[in-house]
Amino acid sequence: MSGNSMGLLFSVTSFGESHGPGIGCVVDGCPPGLELSEADIQAELDRRKPGTSRHVTQRREPDTVEILSGVYEGKTTGTPIALLIRNTDQRSKDYGNIADTFRPGHADYTYWHKYGIRDPRGGGRSSARETAVRVAAGAIAKKWLREKHGIVIRGHMTQIGSVEIPFQSWEVVNDNPFFAADASKVDELEAYMDSIRKSLDSVGARLRVVAENVPVGWGEPVYDRLDADIAYAMMNINAVKGVEIGAGFGCVTQRGSEHGDELTPQGFASNHAGGVLGGISTGQDIEVSIAIKPTSSIAQPRRSINKAGEAIEMETHGRHDPCVGIRATPIAEAMLALVLIDHALRHRAQCGDVHVDTPRIPGRIG
Amino acid sequence: MSGNSMGLLFSVTSFGESHGPGIGCVVDGCPPGLELSEADIQAELDRRKPGTSRHVTQRREPDTVEILSGVYEGKTTGTPIALLIRNTDQRSKDYGNIADTFRPGHADYTYWHKYGIRDPRGGGRSSARETAVRVAAGAIAKKWLREKHGIVIRGHMTQIGSVEIPFQSWEVVNDNPFFAADASKVDELEAYMDSIRKSLDSVGARLRVVAENVPVGWGEPVYDRLDADIAYAMMNINAVKGVEIGAGFGCVTQRGSEHGDELTPQGFASNHAGGVLGGISTGQDIEVSIAIKPTSSIAQPRRSINKAGEAIEMETHGRHDPCVGIRATPIAEAMLALVLIDHALRHRAQCGDVHVDTPRIPGRIG
Amino acid sequence: MSGNSMGLLFSVTSFGESHGPGIGCVVDGCPPGLELSEADIQAELDRRKPGTSRHVTQRREPDTVEILSGVYEGKTTGTPIALLIRNTDQRSKDYGNIADTFRPGHADYTYWHKYGIRDPRGGGRSSARETAVRVAAGAIAKKWLREKHGIVIRGHMTQIGSVEIPFQSWEVVNDNPFFAADASKVDELEAYMDSIRKSLDSVGARLRVVAENVPVGWGEPVYDRLDADIAYAMMNINAVKGVEIGAGFGCVTQRGSEHGDELTPQGFASNHAGGVLGGISTGQDIEVSIAIKPTSSIAQPRRSINKAGEAIEMETHGRHDPCVGIRATPIAEAMLALVLIDHALRHRAQCGDVHVDTPRIPGRIG
Amino acid sequence: MSGNSMGLLFSVTSFGESHGPGIGCVVDGCPPGLELSEADIQAELDRRKPGTSRHVTQRREPDTVEILSGVYEGKTTGTPIALLIRNTDQRSKDYGNIADTFRPGHADYTYWHKYGIRDPRGGGRSSARETAVRVAAGAIAKKWLREKHGIVIRGHMTQIGSVEIPFQSWEVVNDNPFFAADASKVDELEAYMDSIRKSLDSVGARLRVVAENVPVGWGEPVYDRLDADIAYAMMNINAVKGVEIGAGFGCVTQRGSEHGDELTPQGFASNHAGGVLGGISTGQDIEVSIAIKPTSSIAQPRRSINKAGEAIEMETHGRHDPCVGIRATPIAEAMLALVLIDHALRHRAQCGDVHVDTPRIPGRIG
Repeated sequence: MSGNSMGLLFSVTSFGESHGPGIGCVVDGCPPGLELSEADIQAELDRRKPGTSRHVTQRREPDTVEILSGVYEGKTTGTPIALLIRNTDQRSKDYGNIADTFRPGHADYTYWHKYGIRDPRGGGRSSARETAVRVAAGAIAKKWLREKHGIVIRGHMTQIGSVEIPFQSWEVVNDNPFFAADASKVDELEAYMDSIRKSLDSVGARLRVVAENVPVGWGEPVYDRLDADIAYAMMNINAVKGVEIGAGFGCVTQRGSEHGDELTPQGFASNHAGGVLGGISTGQDIEVSIAIKPTSSIAQPRRSINKAGEAIEMETHGRHDPCVGIRATPIAEAMLALVLIDHALRHRAQCGDVHVDTPRIPGRIG
Repeated sequence: MSGNSMGLLFSVTSFGESHGPGIGCVVDGCPPGLELSEADIQAELDRRKPGTSRHVTQRREPDTVEILSGVYEGKTTGTPIALLIRNTDQRSKDYGNIADTFRPGHADYTYWHKYGIRDPRGGGRSSARETAVRVAAGAIAKKWLREKHGIVIRGHMTQIGSVEIPFQSWEVVNDNPFFAADASKVDELEAYMDSIRKSLDSVGARLRVVAENVPVGWGEPVYDRLDADIAYAMMNINAVKGVEIGAGFGCVTQRGSEHGDELTPQGFASNHAGGVLGGISTGQDIEVSIAIKPTSSIAQPRRSINKAGEAIEMETHGRHDPCVGIRATPIAEAMLALVLIDHALRHRAQCGDVHVDTPRIPGRIG
Repeated sequence: MSGNSMGLLFSVTSFGESHGPGIGCVVDGCPPGLELSEADIQAELDRRKPGTSRHVTQRREPDTVEILSGVYEGKTTGTPIALLIRNTDQRSKDYGNIADTFRPGHADYTYWHKYGIRDPRGGGRSSARETAVRVAAGAIAKKWLREKHGIVIRGHMTQIGSVEIPFQSWEVVNDNPFFAADASKVDELEAYMDSIRKSLDSVGARLRVVAENVPVGWGEPVYDRLDADIAYAMMNINAVKGVEIGAGFGCVTQRGSEHGDELTPQGFASNHAGGVLGGISTGQDIEVSIAIKPTSSIAQPRRSINKAGEAIEMETHGRHDPCVGIRATPIAEAMLALVLIDHALRHRAQCGDVHVDTPRIPGRIG
Repeated sequence: MSGNSMGLLFSVTSFGESHGPGIGCVVDGCPPGLELSEADIQAELDRRKPGTSRHVTQRREPDTVEILSGVYEGKTTGTPIALLIRNTDQRSKDYGNIADTFRPGHADYTYWHKYGIRDPRGGGRSSARETAVRVAAGAIAKKWLREKHGIVIRGHMTQIGSVEIPFQSWEVVNDNPFFAADASKVDELEAYMDSIRKSLDSVGARLRVVAENVPVGWGEPVYDRLDADIAYAMMNINAVKGVEIGAGFGCVTQRGSEHGDELTPQGFASNHAGGVLGGISTGQDIEVSIAIKPTSSIAQPRRSINKAGEAIEMETHGRHDPCVGIRATPIAEAMLALVLIDHALRHRAQCGDVHVDTPRIPGRIG
């Protein structure tokens, strides 16, 4: 376990570099009997894939997934599911310059000092390309959660740079290039992103992910709390710098009389907890919000050093997302799904036969 | 591993309930040869202990720690270090009422549905009392990090409710009951907390933890990123609802030209990354900020339900912190220490013999 | 995880040295609702405890266990169960000699080189005293397996030195100091052990452990096979040098036509597999056999070296079992129970909802 | 972790079925900077591959390995190394019969009851074909151990059915189809195996694996003992029913005065311990012996049942090894290498900076 696996019972072990032969993962622990095809996974991959609008990287990877194992006659068998996505758009070019310098905001400097060797081509292992693997693995988790428990996991952008995007409706999220839940904001976002791109700069973003219909009782009490595992999963996404559950940082100025969600026979009166109390799901929606830093690769001159420790100036040209946050929505959904399925299985292991007479109250009143 | 252990190589396995015989933990993986006594641990415990001012719970627990194993003639032996803190201030009282109802904002409802049984005395396992164990284990981690690597881990409150507390100096943090780094704010905080208490309410808080002198190269690339493990650790603290690394949510409105920390031979030009790039430490200060919700136990009437699912009204009297965030400072320091020592050992395992000629630049210019 | 925990879902984290304040463990993952008292555990500890006959060590430890957490009103709560056994019979004596030399057959030399420091008192962490902890944890596992699945786990000695002990009946096993399943052999064993003791020597032993009523389907397919986890658990017992499942080494000279257990609607026709095929339980009895080396501490002069690397001669006096294998029976039962409960929970997690129409055939014909 | 990963720090996650698209694994935790090419791995795979003599299965798989990640410019980068072996010799045939019945001695019955679904083609996941993956991963481990520590890991058959094979010389082991260390035995073995094959039967086997030059101090004290992890690894090999370390079952009749290896300044006087004391390596050779059951697939009629639970008679035709033990030699070497590298890294993590003045005595006198 050197940092490339996550999940105790539904575990994903990821591999691959941006410009090597391919990327992929082994999903171990998927319950048997789930109907699964490459098309199920491809549908999620296509939501993340580059080249879909002018606001994301123009790299063109078909990102075609192959299931190498663990599925027989269209159903999972309980054995490991290996997924492989071949890399196809590795442009042949000279990486000599990148290989000897450290791009600001990137992992070049830290990888170099940690490993003493690094694959500089497209960022190697630290490339956001690796996140395709999580979306693929997450597609399996999502499907199981939906079919077994009716759980729906969805995300949308709430802010891109200075533009806040209110929530209007889930309906429109997949119909615009910004995963915006308010169609009336799309024109403003288009113009804003165009201006960012023209200024040879990039911006940060914020998004929200919600899981509905999670049963009460999933999670652990002290160290593998459901919200802690979610924070871990989200902060594992490239470029994420902040995570909130429920009220998040808003709780700092709340009073206890406001924050603590009251219970009524008709349901919880509010959801400041974001669906988790004491590390365990309440049955309310799991509410997560994350902050994503602006893309580090920009075409402006920036100061840095080279391997010899000498000062240099560099600008990064190429096919980069001006806001990496945009394509993070399916990734964040996938990460949340991976955490939830793991806790679903953990719950079944220890408490699968617990019966409680107390009625489970609805997540929300009315 | 049912949610009571953390750490891969320096692992802490916690046990105990608020009003049972005691709480404690087993620390496995501490390198041999570290000088360690109960006094080393007690010093940290005393910073967290209740009853030190009128602004925290008046529960009086001496919280005396006993080392049961793993230390011989004043030094760690490399074998597990078991720590035990006996509970002494369990007031004998009737918990019948609490046992049949679910306090809003608490884990009562979720524990009940998860386990079908719960120890209601003082919150049982979900009590913040368990955090004493982390402070104890963290004291060992802190000492090793300091002696082996010169790492200093410190925290201070940055906001209590609506009162922001600027950073002035580390010197004063331990000299006031609020872990405030600005002595001039103490009077205002005293008055503010008195007013909160009088209104029978509670408030949230925000604090910052910093680790200085962390070497470049600690962390993992994809899933057990240093910042992800920090987010996990922090969100595992009772009542934490948000975690930020470096710029945190502030990165949403930053441009790439601002956020990406430039490198110069004299050091990094800024630290928006908070000391972590690509999941691996940069050699800059690790900067973490967390949000802590207001205490859920307040003496105001609140709506809830009982085990039969019927509507009730309850108010929680007793010895509660009006702002649980205050005593969270040593806990957050401990959690950061636990994450760092684990990654120190992981780094040594995989990359302990890596040698790089590139100079390691200082964390900060000037 | 530095070698003091075992089990993925029902995990035992052990601590303690032979002559420190105490030994104990944290059991994490026990399902909630199991009736459990200290008496349940004490009963198993008493089967292992020293001083019960002249054929085992005369050290007198009451080995009284205290439950520190995880049990409320007589039932497990699903939270960690911490167990503590205080050491009481640490004779005050000078360990200076032992501290500077390495006893042949003991872990002194290896601990010293690994850790650079060791607690020499009574073997410190490497003392067989630590096995009391496993018996205590195993008592919980045994009880759950029996109550939930009707599983019965029993062991008996099959050979002590040159004396083979046939299986006659489980009835007599706990009625003689040798855990012999043949009462007619007890006199011979008494005389044999007396002669060994008089010759200032020790002997090896062999024992068999059986788990009945294990359902078909527990185990994992490739790396955490049920039999592999059993082999791991058994070899983790001090002094064990060999492990067999089913036919064991006898399979070397078997033909496929003999070894492969035929299936009939009335049950399996034989059990050469020892209850495990492809790493997964068959529903037949789990059959395990282990070899235990002779006690290393003997009162004869033996060659060794001291810390300076100089040749010395040493004999070990004190209160030692002339055959450590004798008291290993309850330990081996406990280890098997710990493996089985872990796989019971793992099975429930991944395959808890699998339904198969095929009848489960009985373990044995007739 | 559902039973398809092994290793804490150098972990192998395996995937694939006998007749699916391919088999492979992800090796996570390999230290950076190791020179590695597909040829290094292929050399070990070729030792295990089928079709090399008339005494093993005639299935013809080139078993060509592809490195998908983790290697850059001929060196490991510290990131995961994914290996893929495409399946090429899946004969198209009707598996209907096998799909509805359970072959005696195989995992058919247990997989079916565990998962409720199974890939019957060639045994699916339970096929010995999966062991190619371990040989591939083991090749990496072997190379690192050899280059970093000078460790040599070698195995040879010690018995096939009733024919014992004495050790004469390592030189000849790879020059005969039986991995025999005595060339004079080869004719007898040829004749013996021919007779077994003609009788439509199969036989068991026994082999020995040795690791030379392992430093003193690797291993863990209580639960992840080096010998326990070896036993686990070996018992994870298909068809293994017994494991011995050092004297193994021979210790049952030994006296303590014989078994306990004396230490002298010139080295240990014997190696009954098999290179492990108290779970930690002594610096002597690690000595392991395993028993492998006879091939279950034989062309004789055997009793079984079908999915409906009805009695049937079946014989298994096809391309099967008459003694699966023969090709197990490189697999057992690989498994030992995987355990050793994991403990090498674990040792470095916890005790990498321990310095002891005591001289390390040689493994053997003279």
